[in-house]
Amino acid sequence: MRVELITTGSELLLGQIVNTNSAYMASHLNDIGFDVLYQTTVGDNYDRMKTVIKNALERADIVITTGGLGPTQGDITKYVCAEIMGKTMVTHAESKKRMDDHFREKNIEMTENNSRQVLVPESAHVFINYNGIAPGIVQACDEKVLINLPGPPREMKDMFDRSLKPFLRDKFGIKHVIHSVVLDTFDIGESFLETKIRDLILKQYNPTLALLVRPSGVIIRITAKADSVEEAKQLIQPVEEEIYSRVGQYVYAVDDEPMENVVGRLLAAKKITVSCAESCTGGLLTSRLTDIAGSSEYVTGSIVSYSNLVKVKHLHVPESILAEKGAVSEETARYMAEGVAKCMGTDIGVGITGIAGPGGATEQKPVGLVYISVTGDRGTYVVKNLFSGKREEIKYRATQKALNMIRLYLEDKSVL
Amino acid sequence: MRVELITTGSELLLGQIVNTNSAYMASHLNDIGFDVLYQTTVGDNYDRMKTVIKNALERADIVITTGGLGPTQGDITKYVCAEIMGKTMVTHAESKKRMDDHFREKNIEMTENNSRQVLVPESAHVFINYNGIAPGIVQACDEKVLINLPGPPREMKDMFDRSLKPFLRDKFGIKHVIHSVVLDTFDIGESFLETKIRDLILKQYNPTLALLVRPSGVIIRITAKADSVEEAKQLIQPVEEEIYSRVGQYVYAVDDEPMENVVGRLLAAKKITVSCAESCTGGLLTSRLTDIAGSSEYVTGSIVSYSNLVKVKHLHVPESILAEKGAVSEETARYMAEGVAKCMGTDIGVGITGIAGPGGATEQKPVGLVYISVTGDRGTYVVKNLFSGKREEIKYRATQKALNMIRLYLEDKSVL
Repeated sequence: MRVELITTGSELLLGQIVNTNSAYMASHLNDIGFDVLYQTTVGDNYDRMKTVIKNALERADIVITTGGLGPTQGDITKYVCAEIMGKTMVTHAESKKRMDDHFREKNIEMTENNSRQVLVPESAHVFINYNGIAPGIVQACDEKVLINLPGPPREMKDMFDRSLKPFLRDKFGIKHVIHSVVLDTFDIGESFLETKIRDLILKQYNPTLALLVRPSGVIIRITAKADSVEEAKQLIQPVEEEIYSRVGQYVYAVDDEPMENVVGRLLAAKKITVSCAESCTGGLLTSRLTDIAGSSEYVTGSIVSYSNLVKVKHLHVPESILAEKGAVSEETARYMAEGVAKCMGTDIGVGITGIAGPGGATEQKPVGLVYISVTGDRGTYVVKNLFSGKREEIKYRATQKALNMIRLYLEDKSVL
Repeated sequence: MRVELITTGSELLLGQIVNTNSAYMASHLNDIGFDVLYQTTVGDNYDRMKTVIKNALERADIVITTGGLGPTQGDITKYVCAEIMGKTMVTHAESKKRMDDHFREKNIEMTENNSRQVLVPESAHVFINYNGIAPGIVQACDEKVLINLPGPPREMKDMFDRSLKPFLRDKFGIKHVIHSVVLDTFDIGESFLETKIRDLILKQYNPTLALLVRPSGVIIRITAKADSVEEAKQLIQPVEEEIYSRVGQYVYAVDDEPMENVVGRLLAAKKITVSCAESCTGGLLTSRLTDIAGSSEYVTGSIVSYSNLVKVKHLHVPESILAEKGAVSEETARYMAEGVAKCMGTDIGVGITGIAGPGGATEQKPVGLVYISVTGDRGTYVVKNLFSGKREEIKYRATQKALNMIRLYLEDKSVL
């Protein structure tokens, strides 16, 4: 089944917003076996939109539009589609009732133009909008299907998952499922990873393997097609195990779980507390740790020690170390980790000191040089890193590395 | 001049990456007066791509493709375009020399397929790629212009700004410039802002006014068309002044300067230091302050005080206050701000305590309740906030509010 996605709206044509709807729909349609062959964006111009949609209905079997279902005069998508299908508009009773209830509950006066939102072409199949007012619309003609979804991503995604996917599976008798498992790796480059599993990538047909580079690290996606999720999992399992046996030491999570989540789970399960002494990361590591709901179980507090004075006074880094080795040194990182664990009374302490740039570098200490230390009952470890990128990238990479070190420390694995 | 943008690449069709190229090109083309009427995405399929490009050349005057200029067999865009124009491929000498030099300098062996990257259609106009290997290509035929740019956003953007924009201005004799000034506001909603300046929005033709909602706040864009930047600025100035006179108290920056930058500039100029006691924001405020190069001038250190024990021990929040008023209270925020300023020895102290959710709420203290305090030689102020959104949104909004309070404090304006 060939699909064309049409995103409408002048703010897309003007480049005021980035189109994220197409990527979401394309990847999910692909997962259930539909090929997206074209994606088109057109503005709120009646004639151009009509030509684009008619052209799409010629070259694709399923055409899905997003946007242009709202209350304003610029919202024309469903009128264009109704005209193409030769239908008149009628009020969708259930959507109208939901809208009236909504305005009554919120105690807001409903402006007249809102009634446009609940108009649909006669005899259309309708998807209720559980996150907004305008319903989704499905029209079929000559074995082609024309679908209108709302433009706001939150409304579109929910309707896509809740209504459109089951509708398409049912309508096109899709029995198979596509199921993926993602292995999230860290500290291994894409090309090195590829050499380790190239034979698997080449020989696999079902499941297939793909490597994708993310800021958090490289991910390995294993995708299987089968009659049930259970069966797909059985196809994936031996490949997953083979990959683990080769590069398992680099895998920190499955299915894109953020590293701070993995670390948080371990800390909570083991009832271990953590504190951080952050210099070049400026609080970002603790902020990531506390992005996780419930992190107050294991984060008591941290110290951002930007100045040497704070390092000395609060973390008890000896002044002699700062004078002889410098603030960015293995020794300072070690004292910072040990100092913050003591000062905050936590089981584990993390110390990070480095040069995030663009200034501050010397011949011996370039931008991106970051020492990270983890301390606890297994002893103290320090890793020297040289990260590339801009200031904010170096900060992020340092926190990702620190989180991974905490993970390895908690899992009794080699931190170095 | 009607423009169609064509992005190519199967990773876009599969939804593996979000298309950011189209928005970038569209907004910049719009700025110099070109109307983008269509954006199309097509995969690396020869026949489909050919049909899409031919169709585009029929309905637009300028067709710009991105992607498909690389070394692999899947990179077909320029071959499709050469065939449409009836041209054969030749090596572009300057690009070849740059590529050879590049591999020699890096001391990497050049694989044979790289030579494909420097092939261009005979008699084409060529844009050197200063951030990669594959050059950009311009072909003209029957008053239509067909342009190929590389796909990686970094390469595309530089080539767009450095070569394509001057080329288009020159080719189409564009004398005028479009110049915009952006006023960044905070703490005022879009609809309230609109009521304050609606008459200006409606009556303006040149410059025009637009309101856009960003996570950082609402921005007001004033855009003028004139024969020179100087003249455009003169058109903008009276409108900008009028807006300032009405809503100037909400404007914290111009031209999308981040709030942490504005605050950093003020702190550096006034030689004032700052420290933060962060509870629910978990270090994010200090991380944002230290995203700015040179922030070690005014950030000495901060304390993330997640637990009550840390609030008592390091910030000297009285236990009686925590017991009677609670950790999330006006009084605790005040003690935190004053405590951190003292403990870190800074001129200004900031205290943030709140409920980021999703757990931790009570009937009196809902998710999103955040007290923020700023202290210094002007005295101590506390603001009670109720932020909406998810955990990470509440964290971000609290830091944006705190930064704005620091700014107002430094500018001797009302913080409340």
